[in-house]
Amino acid sequence: MIAGIIGATGYAGAELVRLLSGHPKIKKLLLSSVSFEGNLIEEVYPNFLGSISCPLQKAEDVIASSDIIFAALPHAVGEGYAAACMERKISFIDFSADFRFGEREDVYNAWYEKNYKFPDLHKKSIYGLCELNRKKIKEFSTQGPVIIGNPGCYPTSASLAAFPALAKGLYSKDSPIIIDAITGVTGGGRELSRSFHYAECGDSVSAYKTASHRHSPEIEQSYKAMAETGGNNAPRVIFTPHLAPMNRGILSTVYIPLTEKWRITREDSSLPPSKEIEEKTHELRDLYKEFYKYELFVRILPSGTFAATNRVRQSNFCDISVNLDLNGSTLIAISAIDNMVKGAAGQAVQNMNIIFGFDEKTGLGAIPALF
Amino acid sequence: MIAGIIGATGYAGAELVRLLSGHPKIKKLLLSSVSFEGNLIEEVYPNFLGSISCPLQKAEDVIASSDIIFAALPHAVGEGYAAACMERKISFIDFSADFRFGEREDVYNAWYEKNYKFPDLHKKSIYGLCELNRKKIKEFSTQGPVIIGNPGCYPTSASLAAFPALAKGLYSKDSPIIIDAITGVTGGGRELSRSFHYAECGDSVSAYKTASHRHSPEIEQSYKAMAETGGNNAPRVIFTPHLAPMNRGILSTVYIPLTEKWRITREDSSLPPSKEIEEKTHELRDLYKEFYKYELFVRILPSGTFAATNRVRQSNFCDISVNLDLNGSTLIAISAIDNMVKGAAGQAVQNMNIIFGFDEKTGLGAIPALF
Amino acid sequence: MIAGIIGATGYAGAELVRLLSGHPKIKKLLLSSVSFEGNLIEEVYPNFLGSISCPLQKAEDVIASSDIIFAALPHAVGEGYAAACMERKISFIDFSADFRFGEREDVYNAWYEKNYKFPDLHKKSIYGLCELNRKKIKEFSTQGPVIIGNPGCYPTSASLAAFPALAKGLYSKDSPIIIDAITGVTGGGRELSRSFHYAECGDSVSAYKTASHRHSPEIEQSYKAMAETGGNNAPRVIFTPHLAPMNRGILSTVYIPLTEKWRITREDSSLPPSKEIEEKTHELRDLYKEFYKYELFVRILPSGTFAATNRVRQSNFCDISVNLDLNGSTLIAISAIDNMVKGAAGQAVQNMNIIFGFDEKTGLGAIPALF
Amino acid sequence: MIAGIIGATGYAGAELVRLLSGHPKIKKLLLSSVSFEGNLIEEVYPNFLGSISCPLQKAEDVIASSDIIFAALPHAVGEGYAAACMERKISFIDFSADFRFGEREDVYNAWYEKNYKFPDLHKKSIYGLCELNRKKIKEFSTQGPVIIGNPGCYPTSASLAAFPALAKGLYSKDSPIIIDAITGVTGGGRELSRSFHYAECGDSVSAYKTASHRHSPEIEQSYKAMAETGGNNAPRVIFTPHLAPMNRGILSTVYIPLTEKWRITREDSSLPPSKEIEEKTHELRDLYKEFYKYELFVRILPSGTFAATNRVRQSNFCDISVNLDLNGSTLIAISAIDNMVKGAAGQAVQNMNIIFGFDEKTGLGAIPALF
Repeated sequence: MIAGIIGATGYAGAELVRLLSGHPKIKKLLLSSVSFEGNLIEEVYPNFLGSISCPLQKAEDVIASSDIIFAALPHAVGEGYAAACMERKISFIDFSADFRFGEREDVYNAWYEKNYKFPDLHKKSIYGLCELNRKKIKEFSTQGPVIIGNPGCYPTSASLAAFPALAKGLYSKDSPIIIDAITGVTGGGRELSRSFHYAECGDSVSAYKTASHRHSPEIEQSYKAMAETGGNNAPRVIFTPHLAPMNRGILSTVYIPLTEKWRITREDSSLPPSKEIEEKTHELRDLYKEFYKYELFVRILPSGTFAATNRVRQSNFCDISVNLDLNGSTLIAISAIDNMVKGAAGQAVQNMNIIFGFDEKTGLGAIPALF
Repeated sequence: MIAGIIGATGYAGAELVRLLSGHPKIKKLLLSSVSFEGNLIEEVYPNFLGSISCPLQKAEDVIASSDIIFAALPHAVGEGYAAACMERKISFIDFSADFRFGEREDVYNAWYEKNYKFPDLHKKSIYGLCELNRKKIKEFSTQGPVIIGNPGCYPTSASLAAFPALAKGLYSKDSPIIIDAITGVTGGGRELSRSFHYAECGDSVSAYKTASHRHSPEIEQSYKAMAETGGNNAPRVIFTPHLAPMNRGILSTVYIPLTEKWRITREDSSLPPSKEIEEKTHELRDLYKEFYKYELFVRILPSGTFAATNRVRQSNFCDISVNLDLNGSTLIAISAIDNMVKGAAGQAVQNMNIIFGFDEKTGLGAIPALF
Repeated sequence: MIAGIIGATGYAGAELVRLLSGHPKIKKLLLSSVSFEGNLIEEVYPNFLGSISCPLQKAEDVIASSDIIFAALPHAVGEGYAAACMERKISFIDFSADFRFGEREDVYNAWYEKNYKFPDLHKKSIYGLCELNRKKIKEFSTQGPVIIGNPGCYPTSASLAAFPALAKGLYSKDSPIIIDAITGVTGGGRELSRSFHYAECGDSVSAYKTASHRHSPEIEQSYKAMAETGGNNAPRVIFTPHLAPMNRGILSTVYIPLTEKWRITREDSSLPPSKEIEEKTHELRDLYKEFYKYELFVRILPSGTFAATNRVRQSNFCDISVNLDLNGSTLIAISAIDNMVKGAAGQAVQNMNIIFGFDEKTGLGAIPALF
Repeated sequence: MIAGIIGATGYAGAELVRLLSGHPKIKKLLLSSVSFEGNLIEEVYPNFLGSISCPLQKAEDVIASSDIIFAALPHAVGEGYAAACMERKISFIDFSADFRFGEREDVYNAWYEKNYKFPDLHKKSIYGLCELNRKKIKEFSTQGPVIIGNPGCYPTSASLAAFPALAKGLYSKDSPIIIDAITGVTGGGRELSRSFHYAECGDSVSAYKTASHRHSPEIEQSYKAMAETGGNNAPRVIFTPHLAPMNRGILSTVYIPLTEKWRITREDSSLPPSKEIEEKTHELRDLYKEFYKYELFVRILPSGTFAATNRVRQSNFCDISVNLDLNGSTLIAISAIDNMVKGAAGQAVQNMNIIFGFDEKTGLGAIPALF
């Protein structure tokens, strides 16, 4: 099988090159890059020397000879390629936000300032959060090629931390669910910018785009979809991103206000966790474990172990630690993912595996790096 | 004037040595260290070579010859020194948690597993968050020596981000105030521990002590005190700490659910900030500015500038960015401090300045380092 | 085949667990740890959750059931295990310095302050720098089990940068070869120490053990051995280590004074590289390429690309950039390795592959991580 | 006194703003910036909020009203300003390379690809390495305004590490002096570039511009000048830069081959340092101490303490550790400076202090930050 990658020299694209080059079902990679057309991928990323050698071609040529296309392009430039793929009857997995909003063109337009060029394509595209839409991706794939809007890194981590609570209706509608997240610098991509110039962000943590980040509506939509699987109403959400001085990883701390049924009324929250708190915590953790018991990439951490990005580094895992706050009213679920793997290229491979009916772990077996 | 520092070789103690050595009112420093008694401070911290030279003596000798004592000791070992200072009629500024809980010995005992040895001392000690208790510190100081419980780093940053909202009663009691905070590694102190071994925390962000950190009751208490200044009830709080790979700094993102009066009802939060959101944000920011207008170390950041630890590095400033979430229901106030300065040694100097009636900026004029 | 690891919970041991768990010839791992006996490896390293599960047993039990033993122990504690392996007729690959000095017990004793307990074992042990002793390891292995002294991380990187020049006699004996090297923090191991406490080494570069590092005699010995393969005399060496704030990697800059034959006499070295310098550089680079043409893990970088640790991260590669100084007198060869892979666990696997006659890349095919 | 800074918004310019704002002799700062003309400096660097407020004007206006001008501009754009200053009879301290090469326009031209526009100015400009040219700067200043070529960061650190050996003729001419140096990322300046994009250099160490860095001829020239003060011939030098993941600092390891008189002939360098080595080391260290005994910013570190950038952070100090290699043939002097202070803005202030006859420490008393 031949896989084609358009936009292979951006960070997510290059990560995908690395992952797919170890995928046993992929016999050949075809790569495309506007910036480096005519070069070899290993000239752009000398990391690949001796392991991967591949010319960077025109997108059209890549599409013409591939069995599946991944597009790791800036927003609003890939729709035409999706159309071309549909014509050639091959599936298209898109890393940009273009195919994440389905029929909500208004939301896409409001945040990305573009309109859909091929509105019909968006009617049948699928939001590729595997743990949410696996079944739908499988079904659609049996009927023909599909278009996958591969999720954003923040939405992936925020969603996985909240899904069990959303599906099971643990959340009170009285307060919003708050997602406080921290990303590493590869989240900013390969394009140069002041914010990611080392001297401006090294040895420092900062907030950015508070209450105005594009991933906010995407999270909202994902939460709504999962809530509805359990017959629950969409929660309100608040999303706040931060930047930390590290190469990879996202840590999302999600605060979920519990319904009467799930909360404890505790008189004095100024004291350490009570037995009752601890028992409820175990109950919540067990509920999370049960929910994810068939998921290969979600690990619910044992009591006393807290989510950390260095425990999922270079892997497709999502770690989640589950706790109950000292008031007994709020579930604190913290997830850690590698933003470049489960948050981008790894999830794209997972989507490909689902589309073709491969074992979902194929090509994604990397054990988290220790350091 | 002579200042004495007990526990001068821990990180906070050494930072204080550095700050006080540039304080124009301090003519001499006397230093004490159990671990390095008999050495010179510049042998322990070669940074000081050529600038500061001072022998490390016995605590008793330091107390006997000083006009004020700072104790930067582990919890539960300094009470006796406080008593000795009271006897000598000199003020005592304590970096540990020993004097932060006043009459709530039960809370102190529950988290620190020690009882008060000199209960009387705790009746008149003051929680040294300058922006909260300045007046009280001044008043008590006119009557004799005082004992100051210098605040924890997290409580300082969490408090400053929320004080205007607490005093002005902006918060709804229906939901807790959530503090999501990120610290640098000096927060862990000089004592070796696995969590702060570089290889275990480098290039990674992690959660720790979720829903079980000792600073939680301290924040609760500080919030309650400020709320009461405005005749408001104590809010519930949730505090979650994180660790980031940087030397210094704390960033606290505080989510304050607003009362009916302050919130906006917005139909579709999946769209970018509306004009109404922006206007309300300005209003809230102005309220913060007004509240802090006489504070020398609090800076309310202009619209579009977000709190970052590298903008307050090496200084006593606390930066705060103020935003309203996309739902219009929650104030997001983000504060950045240098955990070693405003979060420890700087605030201690500020307390000393208040006690002695010096200009509060004395010795604290350092402009934030650029990198 | 069953592989046993004694000292599996140190950093190098754990890295080896990760590598061997993906090695297609290893059907089972047996692990031993003094500190964590009775625990599971994934309790000590939660990174392994869901991927590797293995109890930590007694060393004796591991040896009794394995086909090869790796020992990742502190210096001077593993000799007895080596003896036990020889008795059981299984090979022993040692990460400590115990088997690196062969008959030079005096050197070992002078630096590590221990004597050999089983002197006979040292007569037939082999220094496991694959690019130096591959042939010897192969030969010895055909005759029975072997003992491998797996090289230090610095000696590996220093050796590979200089080997072509040593074998081909490019170096002048008039001046020493200088190795200036920079390591990441995992080089200090898992044991806590002040030097590797994040707050003491973060955002800073330092020298340490200048002119007194234990790897100095090991480098000297390795250089001598390679020089002798070309009939050349041992060079003098100077080795200076440095510590940089990064998790993994070693960069070694090696200055090799050239013989008359190889050097250029340049009148004015204050001018940029001349054509003559550039041509000679190419010649030297080609010589390096030729020397390593059959090596799977050594990559000679193209002109204009300089060695960097992030290009070999998580891989067994050693990158080398080759340059001639502006005077025309000194070859500057700079090597980058991952200290935990080619500098420790990866090279140990490579040695195992050689012993058993497996393809040398088996289990070591990881493409360098991009970030 | 009024100081003017042209190019105040680059990193070195902004650092100078910070330093000069605390200088007791400077009553007012006038700032200029092409990129941000019309803005306030605190809008570009919010670190300055509440401490420094200053409009960014046209260069001409700044020059017209200042008593001294600092230019922190890219190379080859400041000569005209120097001419304007001479006309106005005020001194000009230039951070670029334009005035570092004096009559060697050929060298300047070869590396910077520009010619001198005002050749006469270069005849009387002085290379502003204070420890080399203090006397000359003082003398010239008594006769009128001067032009100072403020040294590069690498040349400053490389020079201070070698000056005693150069002046005292300790070096053998048979081999080159080798300078192996490591810089932090601010060395790359404020201009965006791939090399300093966090994701490309984070958690990694790399070589760059090996045998082709512009600071090489500058070091050569500085070494020559100091050697000649002792009647010695210019040594050959080799300079190799590296980049480490830290904000500030340069560490330079300088290998100085000793003359017969100073070297020890040691039979077996594979053994730890002998008594003889240690004694000679002390002798060399004492010679360094003696040489620098009147220097306020040079600290010769005691035995067992090695140079580290975090011990001079935020200060104008240069730390030097002195060692003798295990062969007894080579002096290893390692210097650490803060590249933005002693390596740029601090040294510029030091030059100003010399020009005006102020105490050289004025405005430069900052004790190195601890973290």
